[in-house]
Amino acid sequence: MDIQESEDEFIQSRQNPRVKALAKLRDRSGRRKLGLFCVEGLRELSRAVNLVSVDEIYYAPELFVSREHSEFLENVRSCGKIKLCRLSAAAFEKVSNREGPDGLLGVAQQWPTRLEDIPEFSTKTPRILVADSIEKPGNLGALMRTADALGANALILTNPVTDIFNPGTVRASQGAIFSVNLAVASPIAAAEWLHGLGVRIFGAHLGASKALWHADFSGGCAIVVGSEKDGLGDDWVGLLDEKIKIPMSGASDSMNVNVAAAVCMYEALRQSGEMK
Amino acid sequence: MDIQESEDEFIQSRQNPRVKALAKLRDRSGRRKLGLFCVEGLRELSRAVNLVSVDEIYYAPELFVSREHSEFLENVRSCGKIKLCRLSAAAFEKVSNREGPDGLLGVAQQWPTRLEDIPEFSTKTPRILVADSIEKPGNLGALMRTADALGANALILTNPVTDIFNPGTVRASQGAIFSVNLAVASPIAAAEWLHGLGVRIFGAHLGASKALWHADFSGGCAIVVGSEKDGLGDDWVGLLDEKIKIPMSGASDSMNVNVAAAVCMYEALRQSGEMK
Repeated sequence: MDIQESEDEFIQSRQNPRVKALAKLRDRSGRRKLGLFCVEGLRELSRAVNLVSVDEIYYAPELFVSREHSEFLENVRSCGKIKLCRLSAAAFEKVSNREGPDGLLGVAQQWPTRLEDIPEFSTKTPRILVADSIEKPGNLGALMRTADALGANALILTNPVTDIFNPGTVRASQGAIFSVNLAVASPIAAAEWLHGLGVRIFGAHLGASKALWHADFSGGCAIVVGSEKDGLGDDWVGLLDEKIKIPMSGASDSMNVNVAAAVCMYEALRQSGEMK
Repeated sequence: MDIQESEDEFIQSRQNPRVKALAKLRDRSGRRKLGLFCVEGLRELSRAVNLVSVDEIYYAPELFVSREHSEFLENVRSCGKIKLCRLSAAAFEKVSNREGPDGLLGVAQQWPTRLEDIPEFSTKTPRILVADSIEKPGNLGALMRTADALGANALILTNPVTDIFNPGTVRASQGAIFSVNLAVASPIAAAEWLHGLGVRIFGAHLGASKALWHADFSGGCAIVVGSEKDGLGDDWVGLLDEKIKIPMSGASDSMNVNVAAAVCMYEALRQSGEMK
């Protein structure tokens, strides 16, 4: 079936009310009100349709950059579960969050991100990443990707400044947002939940004397990393079981939060003996 | 002495030829032609004046966001070595590479970045990071920061797509560009130089069977990480002494290049026993 001849609704005007409503999902308040968020681009959307509830897909064939884009669309159409709506290139560019959009944008339902929504782990020694006061969507997305790649059982966010469903976060996560267990909680609630799981809570702290590689992560662990600017906040420091130092040897006095997280989660993965 | 009453040249027009010339340093070709580049922002410029040759500093007091900005300027003035030129806020915004500039921008001299320009190491077991085909200035800057923080003796770039002196690189490096030993070379020249130092060359490769933590980095090492999109290029694979795998356990099939570099350099630092 040719896309051009489909019976999907076709919106050409940038002033169309649905286009305007879509553009509102760029703002956190708009997203929260509707409980929806945008998933843009072939790679991200392909993962999203398999893992979360995607209500609608907007597409602009003029912007497709590969044959895979049309194939993806036809697959979605043949499943018949997701509403499709064609946009003119001009209308698509208005709703897109990217420079050089690829003509695919889905509207997905947000999911609950409370601690109690995280499914029970199959392991008794989970490795959990906790990130405090993350400001930049790009950093948050990168943390999701790192948590995913290094096998974290969950990523807990405390005092987040940016939100999980920000388009910049979704993009930087490269789809990891759909596969990592995510929750948002206060430091106190997070600490209580973590202790309930029986894991020790380690905090990366510049003032610590014990180096990361002398810590024992083998009984399961939660590792808390803080914002780049201020490090771990006071509200976390009192809740830690152990402070650990990430050895640094350069002129820098700080590390990108994602690098700090990666180095810690890597050490926990190494000690776990799970990967040979 | 009050900034307002200084005798520095004061350029108000965005059309001033010097302002136009400065704006040319945004382009790689402009930078290369003049052998100059821009260092913007208090933090970066403070490190630059101590470590590299800064010819001129442009400032717009209306944009200063802290008392430290004026103090920095007065320190520079009292040393008398760097030409100062005041710009109107409008002219400054024209030459700035940032959203929300802080009113300080220096013009610094590029330095030679050949392998032979790297000073001799004091250690016989150096740890060297090699990054191949890096495209994004933000990634390149982040790699500099990681190399610095994890004590790499040098960062060698092969087949770079972006250049070291790109304003986005300078910014993302957060000053690490001024402290890390940097060189640009072909893979063949880099491999020859590295073998001349007596270090083994390890390449992070998805197809490798040996996990990172089973590699022996203790005799000094060079670790080559590739572009995110394509991994390590064929021109590198034949030059490696050993391929290593970064264990991954999530749904992702790739890792951010900076995370891959951090995890590798961290393991080499851990094995070195240098940091307790």
